[in-house]
Amino acid sequence: MAEQSLIIFDTTLRDGEQSPGASMTREEKLRVARQLEKMRVDVIEAGFAAASAGDFEAIRAIAENIRESTVCSLARASEQDIERAGEAVRPAERRRIHTFIATSPIHMEKKLRMAPEEVIAQAVKAIGWARRYTDDVEFSAEDAGRSDLDFLCRVFEAAIKAGATTINVPDTVGYNLPDQFSRTLRALIERVSGAERVVWSVHCHNDLGLAVANSLAAVLAGARQVECTINGLGERAGNAALEEVVMTVRTRADIFPVTTWIDTTQIVPASRLVSQITGYPVQPNKAIVGANAFAHESGIHQDGVLKHRETYEIMRAEDVGWKENKLVLGKHSGRNAFRSRLAEIGVVLESEDALNAAFARFKELADKKHEIFDEDLQALVSNEAVPARETYRLNYSRVTSETGETPRARVILGVEGEEKTAEAEGSGPVDAAFKAIERVAQSGAKLLLYSVNAITTGTDAQGEVTVRLAAENRIVNGQGADTDIVVASAKAYLNALNKLRAPDGKVNPQGVL
Amino acid sequence: MAEQSLIIFDTTLRDGEQSPGASMTREEKLRVARQLEKMRVDVIEAGFAAASAGDFEAIRAIAENIRESTVCSLARASEQDIERAGEAVRPAERRRIHTFIATSPIHMEKKLRMAPEEVIAQAVKAIGWARRYTDDVEFSAEDAGRSDLDFLCRVFEAAIKAGATTINVPDTVGYNLPDQFSRTLRALIERVSGAERVVWSVHCHNDLGLAVANSLAAVLAGARQVECTINGLGERAGNAALEEVVMTVRTRADIFPVTTWIDTTQIVPASRLVSQITGYPVQPNKAIVGANAFAHESGIHQDGVLKHRETYEIMRAEDVGWKENKLVLGKHSGRNAFRSRLAEIGVVLESEDALNAAFARFKELADKKHEIFDEDLQALVSNEAVPARETYRLNYSRVTSETGETPRARVILGVEGEEKTAEAEGSGPVDAAFKAIERVAQSGAKLLLYSVNAITTGTDAQGEVTVRLAAENRIVNGQGADTDIVVASAKAYLNALNKLRAPDGKVNPQGVL
Repeated sequence: MAEQSLIIFDTTLRDGEQSPGASMTREEKLRVARQLEKMRVDVIEAGFAAASAGDFEAIRAIAENIRESTVCSLARASEQDIERAGEAVRPAERRRIHTFIATSPIHMEKKLRMAPEEVIAQAVKAIGWARRYTDDVEFSAEDAGRSDLDFLCRVFEAAIKAGATTINVPDTVGYNLPDQFSRTLRALIERVSGAERVVWSVHCHNDLGLAVANSLAAVLAGARQVECTINGLGERAGNAALEEVVMTVRTRADIFPVTTWIDTTQIVPASRLVSQITGYPVQPNKAIVGANAFAHESGIHQDGVLKHRETYEIMRAEDVGWKENKLVLGKHSGRNAFRSRLAEIGVVLESEDALNAAFARFKELADKKHEIFDEDLQALVSNEAVPARETYRLNYSRVTSETGETPRARVILGVEGEEKTAEAEGSGPVDAAFKAIERVAQSGAKLLLYSVNAITTGTDAQGEVTVRLAAENRIVNGQGADTDIVVASAKAYLNALNKLRAPDGKVNPQGVL
Repeated sequence: MAEQSLIIFDTTLRDGEQSPGASMTREEKLRVARQLEKMRVDVIEAGFAAASAGDFEAIRAIAENIRESTVCSLARASEQDIERAGEAVRPAERRRIHTFIATSPIHMEKKLRMAPEEVIAQAVKAIGWARRYTDDVEFSAEDAGRSDLDFLCRVFEAAIKAGATTINVPDTVGYNLPDQFSRTLRALIERVSGAERVVWSVHCHNDLGLAVANSLAAVLAGARQVECTINGLGERAGNAALEEVVMTVRTRADIFPVTTWIDTTQIVPASRLVSQITGYPVQPNKAIVGANAFAHESGIHQDGVLKHRETYEIMRAEDVGWKENKLVLGKHSGRNAFRSRLAEIGVVLESEDALNAAFARFKELADKKHEIFDEDLQALVSNEAVPARETYRLNYSRVTSETGETPRARVILGVEGEEKTAEAEGSGPVDAAFKAIERVAQSGAKLLLYSVNAITTGTDAQGEVTVRLAAENRIVNGQGADTDIVVASAKAYLNALNKLRAPDGKVNPQGVL
């Protein structure tokens, strides 16, 4: 079979980031983008430039730093949106603008309040504006999965004539079945005039658990770009999982007439990085990247399971980046060893000051914990990646918990230079610590989620805690890591409070694509 | 379209339980079975009777208590296995024996060391033995997904002639694609003589993320039974998720010519129960049962998302059992209110003593926590479901953690009536508590996993901790719940140690089906 390229378009930083509380700082987005580039993703959708000044800056930073992958920004079909997108991706060596408009009857009527002809006219204008900034323009028909096929053909013909080079067919609400979606793609490619001049793309949602199957069915029908995210992150039940799409195409090369450029050994590191930064855990029975996906490979040897490994193995764990945890650094490791190990796991600190601060924390950790793993370094550096304005800092904490007594916490916080002390009781030491912090901060924030990343490397491992807070219509995730779970929890709470204090004027794009 | 029934065969208690560390006690299995019956699952595969005395007893208890669903035991194609299975399901009103043998070249040669003709002969004998106990006999061709189609036809013809009433086609290693699997089913149903007299069934694994899509493709090709698990639990990347199969068939009734009997409002309660008992978390971006699947329904209201709910909604959250957390009980609730709320959430305690003990713990909890939710009750009752032989019990604990000091723990354990005290230091309070417990227990067990269930109902919620320990080729999960996360951790550790001390002679069935 003649092999064609399947373009992998990663939207972890855009659709993935739209998950409640998964918003990332500029530095975090840059770290994810660097990992995506290392994995050889073809296109990185870095954000939605018009959503906020923060989003614009993050896309701009990615455009300045990423050389191998195309950098893309989403934009509604308006001149202002497209101008922001064009400015944000301008520094990139390869840049794309991705513009969209809804085409289903329900969306045109209820959301856009536009007639079908107006929608076509607007799409054509949008593509024209985008072409001012780049020749690489993608056009999406939002909710294509529920749009009329004849109308879709007309929209796409107009879009191709206007200069779009990639045509994307999103199943926005995850309603399609593989067979049906495959027929839609086949019909579009057959009927749209100019179809052969563009790359056909799909963007599937997972509401019924079929995002990957729908994407693959579309590839068999002629699609040559799949939009997906690490760990299947994304709004509601998420998007198609990059790792499943890539590994199916590779494992079933007997069926798929396409190959991807992905370095599959970077899949598990990417999965861990995204999980850790967003605070979204990966369930153990998740395909490819779950802790049990290759259970016999992750230190769990159940008697008998391994007698004939080849009888049950269709992929090799090494090929997707699972490997034994390596003891990488210890108490006596120096600054250079620390810096070069960070570089190996894809972390580049912005300044010497940031490196020095991280190294100091590393030394502190090495005193408490005798083996330092890559995960510890990731956690450590996340602690460093604090928002520019750090209002609150944990200077001291003391908690006690004793059978028959009410748990108590005492904290001393640094608040913009000043020290403030508070004490509180609670139903447990974490609750007491949070209450003591609230005595000082008085944020009134509501705790939506408290989660601890599963620990698999020994009792002295660092606990990584995520705290999700809501206040004044904003939702933020805070992270904290420490060998002491109560300290990690307090740090995560303060990190979330600091994010709530940072300015943000983000426009929510209403469940885009 | 004439509607036919799609039989939902749940194997959470058999294939799901084969996940590392997911093994459940007899009481836990019974609770899950009761929830499955309440959800109106057609067939409950309750275990693998010949695996161990514990498995046999659990199946027997389920057979004695479940009246609405068929109760099934797995059995290899041997007279001894089938005898055990037959005895275990005997008390059930509707009983099934499910026997299997491998049919792929690699499995016949490397695992069975049998010639193809011997495999057919053995299958026929096995079905004959099974028919002595029941008329409802299911036959599976292990690794059918990689078997020769002509040979499969001959095996299945012989099985039908021998009296099998359900023919199951497992994709044991999760290697199939929907199109291909659909063609296999279609070919089998067309070519096997006697095909019209049996129910065709599929059992798909999720290694490439396609278990649900493959199952649904098979249904469109004529399969009328799907084997699946709650939350997609199961070996490696798991099985087809029951909730996704059921909700796709229902949501896309325009395409599927079948209906199920499932009471879909019991889906989320079943998901939570299984997650909590096995210690396997559900990721937030999991379809149907993940916390974000209906993000706008779970207390998270992002500005703007809700303007036109119908534009993004293909299912209603209420239909799968999501509802606002209800404040169900408080400090002043009496014993009757407690008992009847337990009954409403599907918990039936075995004896008055068990009820009294649970009620005492409820009162204790109500003193610490002002609002008691259904999840708290579930956790509380799990604490009650201790293994028959409780070697270790936590009588007292004290931990301190203070900036600049090494965390310390002191525990007093009840060890078969005697009290033993120990102290230890650690890298955090949880680590110190585990080390203090090990000073007494000296188990030498290795910690494989430490996880905390995400908390979504406020800072004073109970922490539910899972600790997975390995010792002498056995892996067990321990659970503990408390408003104090350090106490919950210590309880979980002791629960795991108690399970390790309980006798177990389980035969691992080598990645069956």
